[in-house]
Amino acid sequence: MLKKLFPGLEWMLTYKKHDLRGDLSAGLIVAIMLIPQGMAYAMLAGLPPVIGLYASTIPLIVYALFGSSRQLAVGPVAMVSLLVLTGVQGLAEPGSSEYISLVLLLALMVGVIQLVLGLLKLGFVTEFISHAVISGFTSAAAIVIGLSQLKHLLGINLPSTENVFELLYRAFLQINSMNFYTFLIGITSIIILIVMKKWIPKIPAPLVVVVYSTLLVYIFDLHEKGVSIIGEVPGGLPIVSLPAWSMEAISALMPIAITIAIIGFVESFAMAKVIATKEKYKVHANRELIGLGLANVSASTFSGYPVTGGFSRSAVNYGAGARTGLAAIITAILIILTLLFFTSWFYYMPTAVLAAIIMVAVYGLIDVKEAKHLFKIKRIDGATLLITFGATLTLGIETGIFLGIIFSLIVFIWRSANPHVAELGYVKEANVYRNIKRYPEAVEKENVSILRIDSPMYFANITKIEDMIQRKFLEQPSLHTVILDFSGVNDMDAVAIEHLNELFTTYESLGKNILLCDIKGPVRDVLKRAGWYEKYKGKIESHSIDEALATIKE
Amino acid sequence: MLKKLFPGLEWMLTYKKHDLRGDLSAGLIVAIMLIPQGMAYAMLAGLPPVIGLYASTIPLIVYALFGSSRQLAVGPVAMVSLLVLTGVQGLAEPGSSEYISLVLLLALMVGVIQLVLGLLKLGFVTEFISHAVISGFTSAAAIVIGLSQLKHLLGINLPSTENVFELLYRAFLQINSMNFYTFLIGITSIIILIVMKKWIPKIPAPLVVVVYSTLLVYIFDLHEKGVSIIGEVPGGLPIVSLPAWSMEAISALMPIAITIAIIGFVESFAMAKVIATKEKYKVHANRELIGLGLANVSASTFSGYPVTGGFSRSAVNYGAGARTGLAAIITAILIILTLLFFTSWFYYMPTAVLAAIIMVAVYGLIDVKEAKHLFKIKRIDGATLLITFGATLTLGIETGIFLGIIFSLIVFIWRSANPHVAELGYVKEANVYRNIKRYPEAVEKENVSILRIDSPMYFANITKIEDMIQRKFLEQPSLHTVILDFSGVNDMDAVAIEHLNELFTTYESLGKNILLCDIKGPVRDVLKRAGWYEKYKGKIESHSIDEALATIKE
Repeated sequence: MLKKLFPGLEWMLTYKKHDLRGDLSAGLIVAIMLIPQGMAYAMLAGLPPVIGLYASTIPLIVYALFGSSRQLAVGPVAMVSLLVLTGVQGLAEPGSSEYISLVLLLALMVGVIQLVLGLLKLGFVTEFISHAVISGFTSAAAIVIGLSQLKHLLGINLPSTENVFELLYRAFLQINSMNFYTFLIGITSIIILIVMKKWIPKIPAPLVVVVYSTLLVYIFDLHEKGVSIIGEVPGGLPIVSLPAWSMEAISALMPIAITIAIIGFVESFAMAKVIATKEKYKVHANRELIGLGLANVSASTFSGYPVTGGFSRSAVNYGAGARTGLAAIITAILIILTLLFFTSWFYYMPTAVLAAIIMVAVYGLIDVKEAKHLFKIKRIDGATLLITFGATLTLGIETGIFLGIIFSLIVFIWRSANPHVAELGYVKEANVYRNIKRYPEAVEKENVSILRIDSPMYFANITKIEDMIQRKFLEQPSLHTVILDFSGVNDMDAVAIEHLNELFTTYESLGKNILLCDIKGPVRDVLKRAGWYEKYKGKIESHSIDEALATIKE
Repeated sequence: MLKKLFPGLEWMLTYKKHDLRGDLSAGLIVAIMLIPQGMAYAMLAGLPPVIGLYASTIPLIVYALFGSSRQLAVGPVAMVSLLVLTGVQGLAEPGSSEYISLVLLLALMVGVIQLVLGLLKLGFVTEFISHAVISGFTSAAAIVIGLSQLKHLLGINLPSTENVFELLYRAFLQINSMNFYTFLIGITSIIILIVMKKWIPKIPAPLVVVVYSTLLVYIFDLHEKGVSIIGEVPGGLPIVSLPAWSMEAISALMPIAITIAIIGFVESFAMAKVIATKEKYKVHANRELIGLGLANVSASTFSGYPVTGGFSRSAVNYGAGARTGLAAIITAILIILTLLFFTSWFYYMPTAVLAAIIMVAVYGLIDVKEAKHLFKIKRIDGATLLITFGATLTLGIETGIFLGIIFSLIVFIWRSANPHVAELGYVKEANVYRNIKRYPEAVEKENVSILRIDSPMYFANITKIEDMIQRKFLEQPSLHTVILDFSGVNDMDAVAIEHLNELFTTYESLGKNILLCDIKGPVRDVLKRAGWYEKYKGKIESHSIDEALATIKE
């Protein structure tokens, strides 16, 4: 019981000494990665960098206690940061105190939504956002995020627009006013990050570029030559408070809160599942929602901003040997120590290096291989991915994911409203009945047509199925029997039963036969309740096509 | 080609003389029914009665030319009228000229939405609103509509609220201030309508009660004793004009416009299908959308309000012998003549008789039998109906249908995310493999487990299916083979393939076997593109369980 409330207890009570080494080193490495990333992502979200550090403290500990993944690295992530900026910049000037207090309220709302979804066990609802939509959205958002950092990388002023083409065009126009030192720091940082990741992945590259670029600025006084730096980062811990709220603010933030709550969870849960599968333990959607929800509520009370499980940091955490939630707790403690004692060290850190870190991090999220793969295996999944990608890139990230979901829903409805029905013939060699279109050797029985319905039967597709049966009888007037193979009918609703009932009566009066065979248990139950086993005795009990054929009296 | 544009041409070009008799008498009877109903429904929508007559002219002719049903009686209906009132009363005072111009704009929007859905061939999307939702919503809306007429029936003042309990309570408080004459007219009209419908259905009862009550008022000067009457109805035809519009008005009306466009179409199309099936011709969702869309656009330009095909009037039209769209055109002409010459006859018509006509009409829409039927056959469909009904009655009609759709969607996702998987054994008697839980005599083969998956396999349910397979191997360590019977797998996506692929590799390395059998053509195509027929040669080609069992080498 207590373990259900605090999934964290599980690893605490069974903690093994030999796990400590891995947890310690992973905790340290993630902290080193998270300090610059936290500040960078806060910047991306239109917030002062220190907010990113606040969000990297208590929420991590809360998740370690209440979440069900042991290796997920919770904290600020790029996608959620961009969503925060998109959703809140229309309501207040990014960086202003009004903006910050709206973001705190947003974090609270995200937390409460996730908590409620988890407590009501509604985690399964998020499964409706298909993989193709997520993949297309992630790739496009990565591009939007990467390009949003262009201004920091080049040291120019660019409007914060989600339209990437406009952004590129404006950047091109201003290329002359670029700050050379800024660009140099940015581009060398990017090269170092890529090279180190490839050749010496053991050494935390973000730390290296941060130290390198900070020293560069400090030694050569580059901040006096137009290189933008972080400047004063307030030391100490934030005061605990509940965010200010008003009904207007809540209703204005609601759409973005729902989006962040769901997208944040979906991305995070996907990563948690990958690691859990490898480590042979289980994560539960609803417990994850509760864990992330509480983490976000705590982020809100500790002056943080919405957090979730990050892809790359979790991978690093797991790769560095994290065994339990203790690694995350160690990370949080290290960041608290940083806040207490070392914030002055960030003064000369150039914003260009943070831009470089973001750009390299999100580049890894662009997944062309997946798009190709989907197109090869299932064209419609590929199309869904491409449409989501295109819409996100051109119409903005909220509209993009929304359109993607709508499109995949429409595809889904269309498919289930247009069921596949195969006409079967007997394949002697294998002693089975198969689609005559695919097996030219399949033999049909004279004046009997066997139709296999490959779909549940319900209100949305029953008319189509009805049509096909009627057409069969119309096309072939000598037909006396249609056998419906129900092996693919996994479900049936009351409307479908009504229609089929009418069909049975109509054709009975015309002296024609309709027989059902191979009906599954769940469908048999429904037909039993509708009284079919009395009404249509002898017509629907056959276990197989052979049995049904044997019942025909010629 | 031309016939596709004007489905009405079909009946015009092939018009047979002997159809004329039925069309004439149906056209006349529907006109007699429509004149009081049109005025009553306009009143329900918060509009002057004459608007209901305007809406019963040109739109009927337009539908007859462009719609695909020959017997559907288009015009004002109760449900849409209530939706108009609900959606617009928050924006302007019902009856005011501002209110009327908003309703005209609304009709235009409804028309354009239906037209666009039809032209883009998106009619199938409406199939996602399940029968249970529609049935629950219709019953509840009928109660709301019926009770909204209580004030006219009793001659008291009641606030226009959607909360039926509040309404009943307030009516109860004011029962003393009831106007006795009004109540007498109303209650006798209701009795006459019910009795005549039952015993002499051939005579149009609405005409009888209208004449009876109008004469009563006229002879006894009841309007001077507090009986509310229609009063002046402007004669002549409306001027043709486009409604005034602004972006704010459009965005404020959008939700209700979408609701009316879809609900109106769904109800109307259901009736059109019923009649077409009986008459052995076909109606097409997209052409119906175009027909109704154009009818609504014309309603907007001719000072009408949103129209759709009505249940009861269509039944009367069909029952009175309508053979083609000519019946509707005759109805429209008769109403135009009424507008030109006879509007003064309505002066003394009491509003109570219109209330009585509405109440009796909507009473027929309350469908308790359907609710019982659904509960018996499929509990979850019954629950959906009940939730939609309850929400519509207590939270208002827009919220009601919205919650109903959301609930049915959640049920749908939940079902498909929790697939039914049966473990099979051999039933000797019938020579088939069946669920061992339902067939205790079914025999399992030693160390082989046969699982039949009764669901398409895709991202939302693949983890659950994976779990079941893994659990089988964990529970029974001596198991060396799991055969997956794919006869119920109608579809598969790329994510499912990925997961299954991993499962294959994992268990292969553990010396265990997973075999697939009886895969359908569409799924075989997907697996072929994923390269499975090379990679898993000998493991997935079996046509039947027997064949798969034969391939096992012990």
